[in-house]
Amino acid sequence: MKNYIDLSDIEDLPALLEDALKLKNNNSNPELGKGKTLGMLFFNPSLRTRLSTEKAAKLLGMEVMVMNINSDGWALEFEDGQVMDSNKAEHIKEAAAVLSQYCDIIAVRAFPELKDKERDNAELVMNGFKKYASVPILNLESATGHPLQALTDALTIIELKTVKRPKVVLTWAPHPKALPHAVPNSFVQMMQKMDVELCIANPEGNDLNSEITNNTKVFHDQDEALKNADFVYVKNWSSYENYGEVLKTDEDWTFNQEKLRGTNNAKVMHCLPVRRNVVIADDVLDSENSVVIHQANNRTFAAQAVLRKLLKG
Amino acid sequence: MKNYIDLSDIEDLPALLEDALKLKNNNSNPELGKGKTLGMLFFNPSLRTRLSTEKAAKLLGMEVMVMNINSDGWALEFEDGQVMDSNKAEHIKEAAAVLSQYCDIIAVRAFPELKDKERDNAELVMNGFKKYASVPILNLESATGHPLQALTDALTIIELKTVKRPKVVLTWAPHPKALPHAVPNSFVQMMQKMDVELCIANPEGNDLNSEITNNTKVFHDQDEALKNADFVYVKNWSSYENYGEVLKTDEDWTFNQEKLRGTNNAKVMHCLPVRRNVVIADDVLDSENSVVIHQANNRTFAAQAVLRKLLKG
Amino acid sequence: MKNYIDLSDIEDLPALLEDALKLKNNNSNPELGKGKTLGMLFFNPSLRTRLSTEKAAKLLGMEVMVMNINSDGWALEFEDGQVMDSNKAEHIKEAAAVLSQYCDIIAVRAFPELKDKERDNAELVMNGFKKYASVPILNLESATGHPLQALTDALTIIELKTVKRPKVVLTWAPHPKALPHAVPNSFVQMMQKMDVELCIANPEGNDLNSEITNNTKVFHDQDEALKNADFVYVKNWSSYENYGEVLKTDEDWTFNQEKLRGTNNAKVMHCLPVRRNVVIADDVLDSENSVVIHQANNRTFAAQAVLRKLLKG
Repeated sequence: MKNYIDLSDIEDLPALLEDALKLKNNNSNPELGKGKTLGMLFFNPSLRTRLSTEKAAKLLGMEVMVMNINSDGWALEFEDGQVMDSNKAEHIKEAAAVLSQYCDIIAVRAFPELKDKERDNAELVMNGFKKYASVPILNLESATGHPLQALTDALTIIELKTVKRPKVVLTWAPHPKALPHAVPNSFVQMMQKMDVELCIANPEGNDLNSEITNNTKVFHDQDEALKNADFVYVKNWSSYENYGEVLKTDEDWTFNQEKLRGTNNAKVMHCLPVRRNVVIADDVLDSENSVVIHQANNRTFAAQAVLRKLLKG
Repeated sequence: MKNYIDLSDIEDLPALLEDALKLKNNNSNPELGKGKTLGMLFFNPSLRTRLSTEKAAKLLGMEVMVMNINSDGWALEFEDGQVMDSNKAEHIKEAAAVLSQYCDIIAVRAFPELKDKERDNAELVMNGFKKYASVPILNLESATGHPLQALTDALTIIELKTVKRPKVVLTWAPHPKALPHAVPNSFVQMMQKMDVELCIANPEGNDLNSEITNNTKVFHDQDEALKNADFVYVKNWSSYENYGEVLKTDEDWTFNQEKLRGTNNAKVMHCLPVRRNVVIADDVLDSENSVVIHQANNRTFAAQAVLRKLLKG
Repeated sequence: MKNYIDLSDIEDLPALLEDALKLKNNNSNPELGKGKTLGMLFFNPSLRTRLSTEKAAKLLGMEVMVMNINSDGWALEFEDGQVMDSNKAEHIKEAAAVLSQYCDIIAVRAFPELKDKERDNAELVMNGFKKYASVPILNLESATGHPLQALTDALTIIELKTVKRPKVVLTWAPHPKALPHAVPNSFVQMMQKMDVELCIANPEGNDLNSEITNNTKVFHDQDEALKNADFVYVKNWSSYENYGEVLKTDEDWTFNQEKLRGTNNAKVMHCLPVRRNVVIADDVLDSENSVVIHQANNRTFAAQAVLRKLLKG
């Protein structure tokens, strides 16, 4: 694997998932990463991604260097040809090239601003690193994708499914703040690669980018979509059409026991952090149907599987 | 040991102190912590606690992951049943459960707000982690206690005492800001477990929580209390009665050479950081009576002894 | 080596440079640093220095603890005899003594304020640590010097020179913000120790401290200075005479292809971060004459060579 920036970087998904499951059962192999360094650069906060990736790297024997780039380092310029006379002190050309000398893999988290759709879709940060780094780039969630989360999600569904081809519903839920599309985008793309029956439920005005949803069926009636679901992935995202806007915040779409009853006793997933009683109600999160903690645990093994592939080149 | 949240978690104090002294003489035993991860979560600043605990863990062979939770991660909700529609993005239920999967021990620092006595006494943060984590919790200073500091203090007194049952005086000293009661609380509780003659000196209005001081004699006349002292522990704390208020800032109670002369050539202790010439005068801190640097060094060995106990379960 | 605070701490420069080159070819020797801890304290941002020094220490087998002192720890007082009743919570006397117990080497970055020349020249922070620490101090860039950068620069010139005694020109370039003199100061001092023909080019009003430039020729005509240059080190600094002022920001002195043509096909150096098209133009940075990435890579080996010397004492 050369990079892990989006799901197209995966060459053999079943093999990668099998690797992750093996690593879950037996963490050993600290030789592969010995003498290798993972540099983790955060433009945004992170708990699970930060700790699970750091842990995964150390389980592989790697050294890890973590930077909150905005506070620890210098503001970076990502556009070419700029006269850098304002607040950006360093260009990605230098930063990526230099980091490639200190690190064997560079992991980057960079959220979108949710103000300019074209700019966010251009993935300036991730593509800047990809273009100018000479070592593999690992996406820790970018403007439009979160492939490590998607691999975790696939792993969780494979582990917990009880039928060969489960029905998986991605349902929108309310949230007070405008959230990115990265997690639902990558989840949809990952499910499209798997042997599941996928559909999406969201209010009108909240359809995801149609270039990503493609032929996946989108319901604007949540109850309709949830029928017979084996897995329900609950997640908020802001409007893609009215880019970055929060169109709806009432609790109609909050996922609760009543909605769960409309499913096939579904397992309930979420990437976390989850706002209780806004996105998912206590009565679901505290029930046996919730697998969010199990799912979060899989972050470590998904990260380990990907890091191994990147180390092997 | 299941947790180290307050001094009641200690099963056998003499054995624990002996362990710490042994570790001080010989740091080796990197096998016990091998493959284990300490997660350190800071809601507040830290120098000694951060570095001594990180060092202790690494001396035991552990990996350490450090997070400044407010800037690196997500604001946490600690109350149950909340509709999380404001600024708190993650509930302690999820955070503690997830961290328990990435870490073998979770260490937490969370100061009180000093505005609402009952809320601070409820120890929401520490108890939230204790309730929802499935791994041991290590208190790096909470709203009402600092048991790692207290173990360090006990160790220092045991090492440096020249009589079987020394007189130990905890004396209040002025400070411009409102400080927590955690350090004096835990110091008092620890001394009550030891073979020392303990008394407390503080101005009227600054008595500590009587449920903690219990039968320990409290003087409002500092000179009276200091007589024949073998150890003087100097420390500021805000009012407990007029909760969180700074009632007195003049230098009457600043500990200086003149006051030292009223003791039995006492050794002078402080948990650090100490404001010179406000809490303790230069002429004491720069004298041979000051053992504050020796005391700070013991932080590493107290932390090692506790981490070993927690690793052994 | 007892400390590495300024270039006078180097006992044998050719031997040190040879060590660094050897380390570049073969990174192994993780035994020397085993069980030793490097504490890195940052009062200011850092990317290259942070990561290259951390990496260097880990390559030597050391544990590394990193603190952003302002946000992670306590504000430090560096002046003696103060009544510490304002915002400084800890005195350097205690901080340095305590850190000396947790760390085997203390590395410190502390920029000048560029407001009070005498205060900056006094190097309060670095000298405070030197005075009160009992372990070696490593300068990660102080008010007036950046000796790790200078060693990197020397290494780069030795590796890339094609004549025995190259002509090396340090040229000022514009920058929108007031920058310190640390990098040019240490570069000049290092070149003065080497077998090169050194001169400096800067606008009137921007002469460096004459106690440092000494007999080194200073040109106020950039073109004149650049003639026959084998190496051009481009760098901005604020005025030393009108201390900390930015006297000139127009692009007359921006280093570009036209200026490069006036040299002996010079190699172009910069310590990074560099503001493109302000300090150096794209047409130079993206040309084969630029060695800034090569130079940044040498940071790791310069740091390793110095850390080895400090570990050996």
